[in-house]
Amino acid sequence: MTRSGRTSYSLRQITERFGGDVDGDPSVQVRQVATLEAATPDTIAFLANERYLPQLKTTRAGAVIVGESARAATRLPRIVCANPYAYFARVSGLFNPARRPRPGTHSTAVIDESAVVAGDAEIGPRAVIGRNARIGTGCVIGAGCYVGDGVTVGGGSRLRPNVTVYHDCVIGERVILHSGVVIGADGFGIAMEEGRWLKVPQIGRAVIGNDVEIGANTTVDRGALDDTVIEEGVKLDNQIQIAHNVRIGAHTAIAACVGIAGSTRIGRHCIIGGAAGIAGHLAIADRVEISAFTLITKSINRPGIYTGVYAFEPHAGWRRNAVHLRHLADLADRVRALEKKPKSKRSKS
Amino acid sequence: MTRSGRTSYSLRQITERFGGDVDGDPSVQVRQVATLEAATPDTIAFLANERYLPQLKTTRAGAVIVGESARAATRLPRIVCANPYAYFARVSGLFNPARRPRPGTHSTAVIDESAVVAGDAEIGPRAVIGRNARIGTGCVIGAGCYVGDGVTVGGGSRLRPNVTVYHDCVIGERVILHSGVVIGADGFGIAMEEGRWLKVPQIGRAVIGNDVEIGANTTVDRGALDDTVIEEGVKLDNQIQIAHNVRIGAHTAIAACVGIAGSTRIGRHCIIGGAAGIAGHLAIADRVEISAFTLITKSINRPGIYTGVYAFEPHAGWRRNAVHLRHLADLADRVRALEKKPKSKRSKS
Amino acid sequence: MTRSGRTSYSLRQITERFGGDVDGDPSVQVRQVATLEAATPDTIAFLANERYLPQLKTTRAGAVIVGESARAATRLPRIVCANPYAYFARVSGLFNPARRPRPGTHSTAVIDESAVVAGDAEIGPRAVIGRNARIGTGCVIGAGCYVGDGVTVGGGSRLRPNVTVYHDCVIGERVILHSGVVIGADGFGIAMEEGRWLKVPQIGRAVIGNDVEIGANTTVDRGALDDTVIEEGVKLDNQIQIAHNVRIGAHTAIAACVGIAGSTRIGRHCIIGGAAGIAGHLAIADRVEISAFTLITKSINRPGIYTGVYAFEPHAGWRRNAVHLRHLADLADRVRALEKKPKSKRSKS
Repeated sequence: MTRSGRTSYSLRQITERFGGDVDGDPSVQVRQVATLEAATPDTIAFLANERYLPQLKTTRAGAVIVGESARAATRLPRIVCANPYAYFARVSGLFNPARRPRPGTHSTAVIDESAVVAGDAEIGPRAVIGRNARIGTGCVIGAGCYVGDGVTVGGGSRLRPNVTVYHDCVIGERVILHSGVVIGADGFGIAMEEGRWLKVPQIGRAVIGNDVEIGANTTVDRGALDDTVIEEGVKLDNQIQIAHNVRIGAHTAIAACVGIAGSTRIGRHCIIGGAAGIAGHLAIADRVEISAFTLITKSINRPGIYTGVYAFEPHAGWRRNAVHLRHLADLADRVRALEKKPKSKRSKS
Repeated sequence: MTRSGRTSYSLRQITERFGGDVDGDPSVQVRQVATLEAATPDTIAFLANERYLPQLKTTRAGAVIVGESARAATRLPRIVCANPYAYFARVSGLFNPARRPRPGTHSTAVIDESAVVAGDAEIGPRAVIGRNARIGTGCVIGAGCYVGDGVTVGGGSRLRPNVTVYHDCVIGERVILHSGVVIGADGFGIAMEEGRWLKVPQIGRAVIGNDVEIGANTTVDRGALDDTVIEEGVKLDNQIQIAHNVRIGAHTAIAACVGIAGSTRIGRHCIIGGAAGIAGHLAIADRVEISAFTLITKSINRPGIYTGVYAFEPHAGWRRNAVHLRHLADLADRVRALEKKPKSKRSKS
Repeated sequence: MTRSGRTSYSLRQITERFGGDVDGDPSVQVRQVATLEAATPDTIAFLANERYLPQLKTTRAGAVIVGESARAATRLPRIVCANPYAYFARVSGLFNPARRPRPGTHSTAVIDESAVVAGDAEIGPRAVIGRNARIGTGCVIGAGCYVGDGVTVGGGSRLRPNVTVYHDCVIGERVILHSGVVIGADGFGIAMEEGRWLKVPQIGRAVIGNDVEIGANTTVDRGALDDTVIEEGVKLDNQIQIAHNVRIGAHTAIAACVGIAGSTRIGRHCIIGGAAGIAGHLAIADRVEISAFTLITKSINRPGIYTGVYAFEPHAGWRRNAVHLRHLADLADRVRALEKKPKSKRSKS
């Protein structure tokens, strides 16, 4: 499965770097991170969720990362820290650093002579870089990527193979765009005139902030007039659709398959569950959490969790119940009628 | 944000072209369109929705496009017309014409010698054009596109970078296909035989009518036996899935993330909201409107708006209410029982 | 529409190959398969669903494939068999065999010198094959595909144009990946630390079993630590999202636009309807069927059909009813109160 890192570190070396306490032998060496279940003696596992406590008893890991509450739950050599999952992320980054750019341009890349490409950037096979585009220091532009005219890609960004960025869009620093991502395609701007749709030119840009990561096959449309903006630190999963003129606040995380309609503004530090939808022209406050599969049709001005999902059940039960939804207003009326039955009438009856 | 157009026009020149009345100074010059909010004195804004009336008071626009009902709502120089949004679309097209094709074939394109490419077409870097394919006059085939064997692309069509069209499909005239679009992949045809799925060859085509626009990463599968057909003037947003043998009637518009299952026929002039779904083998009449997030499971034979969405609320409220859905049939039975309670029994009790 | 096959077969020749009985003249020759509706005298149609019985009366097909129950429903020459749809799939495969690979590497392909490519494989224009990748016998790697470092593609597999496979992933034998598919992109692994998201390196692989087919623009993420696994014979439609560390059991079929969240395990022989969603860290038993548009939020340990969809209705009716969902718990309380009304009190009233 995962490949062992080439370098090993002792628990002491790790805590010197990232903090935390060692319980047990600090000279224990590990070479890779692992799940509790799949760990081997040369790896370090982690416990970030109490549901996995039983696996802590049986793991073959050489060491583990745990929170204070689980300090006594194992005798394995362990690093005790405040935020085991974040700690694990850092340790994994230590063992699995991002591949370094291999500076240079592949002979099959097509780079317009007016483009400015940093000398230490890596431009992969068959990549196309348009007129007046700028590729910053340490960037990796993968095979088959298209970077349109006038696009700026900030330093340290990585476009994985087969990414498309339309003209004049702006990609910040340390951005990761996964394969199949399309940035800056035309928004869905159409006007009805005598039975036919007229295209509304989409002349804004898509502007992606620093430290944003965008998952495979996600699309971020350019603005109709003003820009579409993804602020710094936003994390977008795969197959998300961001329509024209949306703004996503900094450090918001959005799970796969979400769609956000035009001109909606999402706050900072929001979390949006998979396949949720948000209608157009809304404003969502900071620190709002939206459950998976939920459609938001009104603005939300307070932090909190919002949900609207039809819970599943075995099909026969669903059929029996769901049909009554079409009569729910009637049912409510009938209950009201029962409640209002005049006393006299009732005793008479 | 948006770039100013290079040419300016007076309001008089604009109304000579597109009709409408000028109120105020017809010699006012503008060079670009803008939103009311972001407009500057050299731009023309528009009011198509009364909710933006307050912005009309404060806009810095040099002129505005309004409907008859808002004629008196501003003192700015203005064009008064019947359909401000369509009028704005036309004015925007005047300031922001589509980039002209740059006739010629990039040296890195791979064009089969049996393909017929119009002399004034533009074939971008790394594009691949298959055997016996035909590319019409004035087409732009973007970088990295794949146009399969036997495909026809009608005059004036534009394939943005990294579009894929499978063999034998037909693309009409003036069609726009955005990046990541896949036309004519195999439909999901499988037959179960003794515990394993057999593939059903997909031998129909996908046929895209004139003046269709298809958004980024949308997929239109080829037919199983007969063709999948998108009729003229249809507008598809991003990340839509059109299954095999679907037919979409002319001038229908479909928002992002919609899925339409196999062999369903959608009428003309329909409007389908984002992330809606339509089951297979259905017929939807002309001028039907389907709300976002709604699943259509039966044919619809009358125009109108159709909806089925679980409205969201704060999570605690949702939890409290949603659980009762599983007992809705029981609840209805219990209300019926209360209503039927025999008079005698009730008075006795 | 569909092109006639070049070779014709008699019904006798077909049943010699695939079994079944001929009723009527076994020397009748056909050259292609067709729907009942579009069939011509040189084609063979099929009846797999009784709803199409009326078309059986009027079809112009030269012959038909039917089940035992429809043997007497037509006088056309016919093949009677146990599973008409699977039989049709086989006959269609006979008339429409997959195109044979054209062995060789296109001059514009970029193949790392450490890669091992079978001599009879076809590598299309502009394909990129990474370091130490292995391409098996009889493979077709389409134009513009990217096959990353260390990837293995098993014999007989076909990557249609513009597919992306990230480093170290494993593609089995006889796999079909349609255009726009992305295998092995990073899973959505992020850890919150002091208001910012840390990236969790994704060091597992995506492993695709034998005889899997994956539809256009579907994404299968690599594992965070262990692998993401699609077992043999699985069929995935278009625009599906499979998150990190998911395992899909053998011979399961999933319709378009489905999303499956991280670490969930789906059983064997399941069928999942379009646009359904399955939350993370769940286990779904073998032979479970999930309806379209249904969100599964809990593990399912028994075969059966599971559903949770808000049925659509005309918008006015929906509005009238849906609002009462927010008061459903109250309504249930009120019904309980009516039921519990003490006898004495009631008779007195």
